[in-house]
Amino acid sequence: MNVQLLLTPHTLERAELEGRTVVVIDVLRSSTSICASLLAGARSVIPTSGPGEAGELRAKLGADSAVLAGERNGVKIENFQYGNSPAEFTPETVGGKNVILCTTNGTSVFGRVARAGLVLSGALVNVSSVAQAIALQKKDTVIVCSGREGGFSIEDTLCGGMLIDVLRQKHGCDLTLNDAGSLARLLYRDRQTSLKEAISQGEHGRFLTALGMSADVDLCSRIDIMPVLPVLKDGCLVKADAV
Amino acid sequence: MNVQLLLTPHTLERAELEGRTVVVIDVLRSSTSICASLLAGARSVIPTSGPGEAGELRAKLGADSAVLAGERNGVKIENFQYGNSPAEFTPETVGGKNVILCTTNGTSVFGRVARAGLVLSGALVNVSSVAQAIALQKKDTVIVCSGREGGFSIEDTLCGGMLIDVLRQKHGCDLTLNDAGSLARLLYRDRQTSLKEAISQGEHGRFLTALGMSADVDLCSRIDIMPVLPVLKDGCLVKADAV
Repeated sequence: MNVQLLLTPHTLERAELEGRTVVVIDVLRSSTSICASLLAGARSVIPTSGPGEAGELRAKLGADSAVLAGERNGVKIENFQYGNSPAEFTPETVGGKNVILCTTNGTSVFGRVARAGLVLSGALVNVSSVAQAIALQKKDTVIVCSGREGGFSIEDTLCGGMLIDVLRQKHGCDLTLNDAGSLARLLYRDRQTSLKEAISQGEHGRFLTALGMSADVDLCSRIDIMPVLPVLKDGCLVKADAV
Repeated sequence: MNVQLLLTPHTLERAELEGRTVVVIDVLRSSTSICASLLAGARSVIPTSGPGEAGELRAKLGADSAVLAGERNGVKIENFQYGNSPAEFTPETVGGKNVILCTTNGTSVFGRVARAGLVLSGALVNVSSVAQAIALQKKDTVIVCSGREGGFSIEDTLCGGMLIDVLRQKHGCDLTLNDAGSLARLLYRDRQTSLKEAISQGEHGRFLTALGMSADVDLCSRIDIMPVLPVLKDGCLVKADAV
């Protein structure tokens, strides 16, 4: 199986995605918030590329069935009901609702990978669920790290590296990796015993901690605590029963 | 000293470069060809962003004093005198001339970093010369990996990681690294005993080998065989006597 990892999404338009499985990773924090929402009973999470698109979508779906959540530069968007802290998404806040999500790095990626065979949302909190789905699919896979402000992010790369490692070690997959995939796996294996520290001491982790969100960084660094598989269907992320 | 490494140049326009030292790295092959040209006695190497600009510049400078060299997708540009093989640049071909160089990944980066305090061209063949200059400057430094087709390249990242390692180990510099800088150093330390293999087996190395250019890959992987320091002055790379 070919597994290509992209350290950032900026070359995505040139990537071959047709018929392939794509995993979009944004550990801090949208991928984790997506898992939290679906586990809390949200009907779907709708990733959007900007607050304007999000607002229009909510007007269309109606306030009864949809909530607006998201951030710009880490901070909740004005007039949105929720920010992007995974802990905000509970049965009380999002149960039975569609969560329209708009974040700085992660959510806009989904619109750019819709041509893929299957699109999943991956984080550390659901890494084994995603690995299992890839192993079952047996299709060539592209792991897209959302990165931070267009650049590389250590937490997304670690998560991509762990995904590759789990595919090899647990599922015995025979993988052909691109150079970035090998690098991500090296990073993961070097830091696997201190994953939480690597993330909290990274640029994005320090940024969120400075904004008073160290609890989010901590939660997003925990492995497999949200065993759910978000899959993109008609522009909405829903909980997969089976892929 | 702050050392920031950029895995690709795509976020360069937002980077803080004013007053800083910038090192542009394109191991395969423009950075190596620049060193080879200056060591062969070229008056300067003029990096350009496209064949059109290169041609105009040659018309302006005149065929007596300037030669055109460069490639697109690894292959010599039509009507150019030379390609981008470091071995092409000898005292016979470029001695006393200005080499107008136009390559796929590396040469266009120079025009985007001209606002920096000092701009150097770095490769494995001159890594110690570049490290020494940075250590003498004692200024915050930005290492720009040219990458390949907009994406990450293992050879440029290895070279950036080695530069960081030499600054720490040989010059005793106290460095604060960004996440990408730490990653590059990790990669270098993991592969330092098999650097040549890591490069020849990487995506770009395999691509050039398939084009029959394995000798270039081999030459470009050799450490410190071209002890020269190319520095950007008024848009031209010249041999620094002292920085």
